[in-house]
Amino acid sequence: MTMLVNGDEGGRVDARDRGLQFGDGVFETVRLHRGVPQLWSRHWERLCLGLDRLGIPRVSERDCLDDLARVATGPRSMAKLIVTRGVGPRGYAVPARVHPTRIAIGGDTLSGEDAREWLRIGVCGTRVGQNPLPGCKHLNRIENILARMEWGPDWDEGVMLDHNDHVVSGTQGNLLLLEGRTLVVPPVQEFGIAGTRRAWVMERAARAGLQVLETRVDLRRARDADAVFLSNSRIGLRPARWAGDHATLADPADRPESMALMLEIGYELNEMA
Amino acid sequence: MTMLVNGDEGGRVDARDRGLQFGDGVFETVRLHRGVPQLWSRHWERLCLGLDRLGIPRVSERDCLDDLARVATGPRSMAKLIVTRGVGPRGYAVPARVHPTRIAIGGDTLSGEDAREWLRIGVCGTRVGQNPLPGCKHLNRIENILARMEWGPDWDEGVMLDHNDHVVSGTQGNLLLLEGRTLVVPPVQEFGIAGTRRAWVMERAARAGLQVLETRVDLRRARDADAVFLSNSRIGLRPARWAGDHATLADPADRPESMALMLEIGYELNEMA
Repeated sequence: MTMLVNGDEGGRVDARDRGLQFGDGVFETVRLHRGVPQLWSRHWERLCLGLDRLGIPRVSERDCLDDLARVATGPRSMAKLIVTRGVGPRGYAVPARVHPTRIAIGGDTLSGEDAREWLRIGVCGTRVGQNPLPGCKHLNRIENILARMEWGPDWDEGVMLDHNDHVVSGTQGNLLLLEGRTLVVPPVQEFGIAGTRRAWVMERAARAGLQVLETRVDLRRARDADAVFLSNSRIGLRPARWAGDHATLADPADRPESMALMLEIGYELNEMA
Repeated sequence: MTMLVNGDEGGRVDARDRGLQFGDGVFETVRLHRGVPQLWSRHWERLCLGLDRLGIPRVSERDCLDDLARVATGPRSMAKLIVTRGVGPRGYAVPARVHPTRIAIGGDTLSGEDAREWLRIGVCGTRVGQNPLPGCKHLNRIENILARMEWGPDWDEGVMLDHNDHVVSGTQGNLLLLEGRTLVVPPVQEFGIAGTRRAWVMERAARAGLQVLETRVDLRRARDADAVFLSNSRIGLRPARWAGDHATLADPADRPESMALMLEIGYELNEMA
C-alpha cells in the first residue's frame, strides 16, 4: 500500500500537522477505475467547498489526480485523499502562511461486488450534532467512530439520527428511501455529509422518472419505506434491509418497476468509468 | 522544540494514524513548572475519561510524565500531550488490536505574566454543537478553529455560544462570571470542555467563601455580570473586559472584596507548584 505525503513516499507526517492536532482538514474517499477517480468532479467540488469554508488554500487538482493514480492498487481500488492546513504552532490560531498537507493513501482492491446484494442496517444510538461545516467531509469524525462501534455483529451499516430523531445518514454513507415511485432523501443542509453518490443517484433517478423528494425523515418513516438504499463511493448504490427485522422488508416483487429501476441505477453506477 | 512520538524524537507520525484520519484521540495542554505539570492529577483524570469514553486503551501515566519532562523548555513552559487510537486500516471501524500513539510537544517558555492584567473578549458567531463526548478534550476541534478565526484584532479571547444562545466557553478556555459574591459558571455536561482550572477555581472560590453556581447563562447575563474571568492552563485565571464595550465594564473599586479575592486566587494559581 502506497502512502504519499505531498507526493513523497514514506507516509510520515509532522506531529504538529493541524490535521492531527485538531482535525483541521478535509478528505475524500474515492473509487479508482484504472487509476482515475470515478465521479471526480463531484469529489473535487466537495473538497474545495470544505477547504474554502475552512479558509485553507486550495491544493493543485493535478497533484491530487497524480497522487491518486500512484496509489491505485489494481484496475479497481479505493483510495483516500486528505488535505490539512499543514503544520502550525501551538494553539487554534491559523498561521499567517499556510502550506497545506496533501496525503494520498491506497486502499483495498475491489473485485466483483454484486450491486444487487442486500446490506443489513441497524440503528445507532450516537447522535449527529450540528456542526459548522454541514455537508463537508471534514476530519472531525468522532461521531462516526462511536456510531461504528455500535454496529451489531450482522450489520453492514448503522443509521445515525440527529438530536430531533431525524435520520441523517449511515455511519459511512447516505440513506435513500423508496416510497412507491418517490425517492425520499434526508437533507444535508444542517447535518451529515453531502455524498457524491447520493447526489448522482438523485439526479439519475429523477431523469429515470422517479419523483425525488429531499425531506426530513424520522425512523418510523424510514422503517415503513418500501425499500432502503445505501450509497457511498465504495459500495455505489445498494439495497438494504433492517437487521433482525425481516418483517418490515418490502418484497421487491410487490413493486417491481421502481425497485428494478433503482437496482439498474446501482449497476450503472458500478460500471461507470 | 522537542517532539516525542511514543517517546522517540523526530516528531513524525504515520499518515494512517487515526488521530489524523478522524481526530480519534484526546489531548491535554499542560503548564510545566520545572518539568512537572501543574494540576497533573486533573489533567490525567480528564485524559483517561476521554480515552475510556472513546474505548482507547489507557497509556502509561509514567510515560506521559517522562515525555513532558523531556519536552520542557525552561523553568516554566507549556507543553501538549496527545493520545490517539494509533494506526488503523481504512474506515471508521476500530482495529481489533489498538496500539495508542502518545505524542508530546514542547511549547512556549513562560515568563512573568501578570495574573491581574485584563484580557479583552469578543463574541464569536460560530456555535458549539452537541457532541457525544461533552467535557472531554478530544481532537475534533474545527468549531474552535472557526471561532478563533473570528477574533477581532484587539481580542484576547472569543466567547462561544451553543445553538440556544447560552454561553459555553471561550475558544481556548472557560468563562467564569462574578455577580456580587456569587461565581456563576456555565455547565459542561452537554457542551464544551471541563477545564482543569475551571474546576480548581470553583473549588477554591467556594472554600474562600464565594457562592459558586453552575448554571446556563445567556450573553446578556454574561455582559451584565460584575466581572468576567477567563481560565485555562496557560493563563491560569485572568480578569477580562468586553472588547470595544468599556461601558459595561464594572469598576473593580465598586466591589473590592470579591474582585480582590478572585485576583488573589489567580495569583495563587499562577504560583502554585
